[in-house]
Amino acid sequence: MNLSPRTIERLSKYRRLLSRYKRPENTYIFSHHLARLLDLTPVQVRRDFMLIGISGNHRKGYNIKELINLIGQTIDVEKGHNLAIVGMGNLGRAVTAFIKKNETKMNIVAGFDIDPSKVDSTVVDVPCFHASTISVNVKKYKIDIAILTTPPEIAQEISRTLIKSGVKGILNFTSVHIEAPENVYLKDYDIITSLEEIGFFIKGQ
Amino acid sequence: MNLSPRTIERLSKYRRLLSRYKRPENTYIFSHHLARLLDLTPVQVRRDFMLIGISGNHRKGYNIKELINLIGQTIDVEKGHNLAIVGMGNLGRAVTAFIKKNETKMNIVAGFDIDPSKVDSTVVDVPCFHASTISVNVKKYKIDIAILTTPPEIAQEISRTLIKSGVKGILNFTSVHIEAPENVYLKDYDIITSLEEIGFFIKGQ
Repeated sequence: MNLSPRTIERLSKYRRLLSRYKRPENTYIFSHHLARLLDLTPVQVRRDFMLIGISGNHRKGYNIKELINLIGQTIDVEKGHNLAIVGMGNLGRAVTAFIKKNETKMNIVAGFDIDPSKVDSTVVDVPCFHASTISVNVKKYKIDIAILTTPPEIAQEISRTLIKSGVKGILNFTSVHIEAPENVYLKDYDIITSLEEIGFFIKGQ
Repeated sequence: MNLSPRTIERLSKYRRLLSRYKRPENTYIFSHHLARLLDLTPVQVRRDFMLIGISGNHRKGYNIKELINLIGQTIDVEKGHNLAIVGMGNLGRAVTAFIKKNETKMNIVAGFDIDPSKVDSTVVDVPCFHASTISVNVKKYKIDIAILTTPPEIAQEISRTLIKSGVKGILNFTSVHIEAPENVYLKDYDIITSLEEIGFFIKGQ
């Protein structure tokens, strides 16, 4: 299915919200209600649901369970994705714990670091391997997504190794610009740049 | 100056890259060099620098020190911004440490939590206050930016308190949709949604 990143983002948000909203007394939801909870227009919500092939009932709205299932069929892969956290420092461990707290189809199967106190042991319940084994273990564990939380100095080199080993998606926390071929989906979480952006736009208020 | 979020993002990235690149032997840089390092076009780079009033020298390129200074004059406020980390759990502490490691004009002046072991002590070198004092301390410390790393259940309520107390910008890690008035600059770092987005686009590869 040919959906835009924005649409996928919204589908993911609908699902999370609906999973929280799901209670025995709530089996249906109206598009305008969902729209209000996410600051969208009802038209937008209905269009998104039409794209994945579900239409609401005029009097009752959309069946919540059906919505959650259909969104899952659209955006998930059956077995989920295998994730690695590359860099098990403070940020890497915090992000690991954060993901584990949420219900997702993401399996964190490995961590990588060079710290002897972490390597070959378990960190936040994730087996941690030495960074020199990335190539072998990405293949062994069929890792297709990496979360990059290494020091900036090695980010480019490590990401090159990850990509060469078969990783297809990277969530990059390092605030280093990563070069990636077109078939790799890269998403940057550049905390410093985002703070500077916020800072600029609230200037003088 | 009327600059778009994208332009600010690029200016912030130029500066970070130039600060790392600055060495006695590098006093000038060409737009095509900078463009290559960030996957941009040289035209884009030159246009951005024209916007902030600096033009390069045909033979030598741009003076790096002048660039860094001018970008700073454009995007920084003189005294910097005062930041609070709201939620000093794993993620809050990791983000605090991350920011402190970088050179920025952001002063992390306070943390907020409800955990008795953190309240009224210092966490990652930041004084931590009870969440019930947000209103008082946002005013007292002139906090204009908040990083939201609370549990999802209280994110909306806490952000309402932050905004009411005078916070003008929020970097939201909670993956909860925050309602904010138009004069508040909100940026979402929704880890789960981003992973699902990555997952969708690498499906079947």
